[in-house]
Amino acid sequence: MEDIKAYMQQVGRQARAASRIMAQADTATKNRALTEIAAALQSQSVQLLVANARDVAAARDNGLDDASVDRLTLTEKTVRGMAEGLRQIAQLPDLIGAISDLSYRPSGIQVGRMRVPLGVIGIIYESRPNVTADAAGLCLKSGNAAILRGGSEALHSNQSIAACVHAGLRAAGLPETAVQVIATTDRAAVGELITMKDYVDVIVPRGGKSLIARISEEARIPVIKHLDGVCHVYIDDEADLDKAIRIADNAKTHRYGVCNAMETLLVAQSVAAKVLPRLCKIYLDKNVELRGDEAARALVKQMSAATEEDWFTEYLAPILAVRVVAGLDEAIAHIATYGSQHTDSIVTENYSKAMRFLREVDSSSVMVNASTRFADGFEYGLGAEIGISTDKLHARGPVGLEGLTSQKYVVFGTGQVRT
Amino acid sequence: MEDIKAYMQQVGRQARAASRIMAQADTATKNRALTEIAAALQSQSVQLLVANARDVAAARDNGLDDASVDRLTLTEKTVRGMAEGLRQIAQLPDLIGAISDLSYRPSGIQVGRMRVPLGVIGIIYESRPNVTADAAGLCLKSGNAAILRGGSEALHSNQSIAACVHAGLRAAGLPETAVQVIATTDRAAVGELITMKDYVDVIVPRGGKSLIARISEEARIPVIKHLDGVCHVYIDDEADLDKAIRIADNAKTHRYGVCNAMETLLVAQSVAAKVLPRLCKIYLDKNVELRGDEAARALVKQMSAATEEDWFTEYLAPILAVRVVAGLDEAIAHIATYGSQHTDSIVTENYSKAMRFLREVDSSSVMVNASTRFADGFEYGLGAEIGISTDKLHARGPVGLEGLTSQKYVVFGTGQVRT
Repeated sequence: MEDIKAYMQQVGRQARAASRIMAQADTATKNRALTEIAAALQSQSVQLLVANARDVAAARDNGLDDASVDRLTLTEKTVRGMAEGLRQIAQLPDLIGAISDLSYRPSGIQVGRMRVPLGVIGIIYESRPNVTADAAGLCLKSGNAAILRGGSEALHSNQSIAACVHAGLRAAGLPETAVQVIATTDRAAVGELITMKDYVDVIVPRGGKSLIARISEEARIPVIKHLDGVCHVYIDDEADLDKAIRIADNAKTHRYGVCNAMETLLVAQSVAAKVLPRLCKIYLDKNVELRGDEAARALVKQMSAATEEDWFTEYLAPILAVRVVAGLDEAIAHIATYGSQHTDSIVTENYSKAMRFLREVDSSSVMVNASTRFADGFEYGLGAEIGISTDKLHARGPVGLEGLTSQKYVVFGTGQVRT
Repeated sequence: MEDIKAYMQQVGRQARAASRIMAQADTATKNRALTEIAAALQSQSVQLLVANARDVAAARDNGLDDASVDRLTLTEKTVRGMAEGLRQIAQLPDLIGAISDLSYRPSGIQVGRMRVPLGVIGIIYESRPNVTADAAGLCLKSGNAAILRGGSEALHSNQSIAACVHAGLRAAGLPETAVQVIATTDRAAVGELITMKDYVDVIVPRGGKSLIARISEEARIPVIKHLDGVCHVYIDDEADLDKAIRIADNAKTHRYGVCNAMETLLVAQSVAAKVLPRLCKIYLDKNVELRGDEAARALVKQMSAATEEDWFTEYLAPILAVRVVAGLDEAIAHIATYGSQHTDSIVTENYSKAMRFLREVDSSSVMVNASTRFADGFEYGLGAEIGISTDKLHARGPVGLEGLTSQKYVVFGTGQVRT
């Protein structure tokens, strides 16, 4: 335990020192590091796959479930994907140092804001080795130092990836300590990481809800986090029903296990009889289990009764809760009560109702006539994302490079003093 | 204790409900409330001054120090000032609902960001009744609900101001619960306020360092805070010495007890003999105590020896630490080691050194050829400030209306689904 503390303090000190160098690194140097890491991942892919096979074998022996083994497993294709992701990050514009809103004040000083890195970013994630490369790339490009703590099942895979990251940093003349991958599976390391205020500026937990809830509870450092994704589609009485069916189908069935999938469908009473039977036939054909309120069940007999708990639930599975509402007000009230402020969409042709929904629904992404599945860093044009924030401060929604930066004030004077 | 918990939970529930209404309030309604509150403060000024006199008398009986009594005391002039401040907030542009960066994506959706209130803001401050009006005004204009907890010595003053705030909200048709002033001096109320995650979105503590440190430690809600203001002026060897003397004088002596006053002066070795004697004569004439390193003391005999502790100290008093450095690198290193990331200024005519200082010093305000005293919401053109943040996430430096808001993503579609 004392050893872990000393080890983590050392990691923290090194990260802080490296962050000062990274903050000043120029764009070409950072991009060179990214492309060198990509090259190392590809040239070292055999070693990477061997290390990963070792993790996978141990995970299977320990009875890890298939879905988790699947996420842990690397293939030649996923390694190429990691390398490609880093090359894409290299292509993104460098935000650091950009000055905006520079203007003269009556005192004669010029005031503006300069975009700067946050400093040291601690990322805690489950056994998905590709996150190691992604997170390293995003932190590097945004001029931050990173401390990465992946799931213990991926230890050897992550250390292999770390070796490639370090080779790339070295080749670009940047400090290897700019990206440190924690070399112990001791859980005390996490406890240390999320409380080292002097060395870490922000924690980004990625993974299941219980991991994130626990880290948020125990952290003494700001956390950028994603909790639930209880996303809604509301089909208004003035919806174009073809759009409504296409969107509600896609939002639920395009992928089930993702945070931006719809979990509850709200339908305006006056169109429920027209839209629900058609739509539910699509769901049932795709083996989606339906749980509805009384009005919905009156229209679709293959629907079981939803309980109060269902309205709060992020299924992440082929299950959908369905509720018939009087109209827009009741839909907005339902979302305010049961939603998780992630992503909600209205389908309507009515201008005023669309505008009200956009303004009044307090979620990180609010949409009109589009599938909730679009709530994603790539789809929004951020280039890449470190996660989706359901917090209100700092960053809401998909968090890309900008979310890993902040702005300081810069003042250009010519000798002004305050009077 | 149980009563306090129940009371605060009730306050929290009411604030959350009010925040939904405030988020939708239009600009004219919010401005009307602000001007009505201003009018109420002036028409009720006699009652206000009577309530304040009661607080002041009790504070004197309890042996409160003169400076604190001074901050507690209201006069006709300060009441007019509060009213004027609210009218100025009414004049500021309304940021809420503004959509920026709206652009089409290859999928056909249009993605932008809408500025939205944070929700419920808890403000904890010392016995300065004018903060009650200021904070209420800023939260109101930014579409937030506020829970205000002022120092116990100001209880009657704050309740009087609250009555005016409520009258103004009522007159504008807004809920009185949009601004709630805690009616108990029990410290348990603070403990409750800073942990009511479901009802409060952010805590802004204003006051002494120990108050802020304690609240940050115990809060389970994000905090926008200001810790130390150990501000530096670095006089470079290529400085215009007249500007240098004017700026270094102003930064230290314009006001002593403020967070943006210079606390440590750094001077490049090669100009120290030219600038320090002239400058220190000014300080000594103004009774500023000087504490220097050996090189500085060799030039100014009325200087005592600075200890390691001095470099870390925010004096908030007519005391100045002085250090002679080799040049820019040593100045930047000193600021990184001893500074508090608040405000630092370089005086130089050299372009490259000015640019390096701006980029490399990691403080919320970094200046060239200007007094640190400019680090202020009004001077920066924010119109008003709720405080100065020394945090890195969300808001750095002076925090005005924008710091009390966030941005959500809005998506305008025409039936798009993800493929």
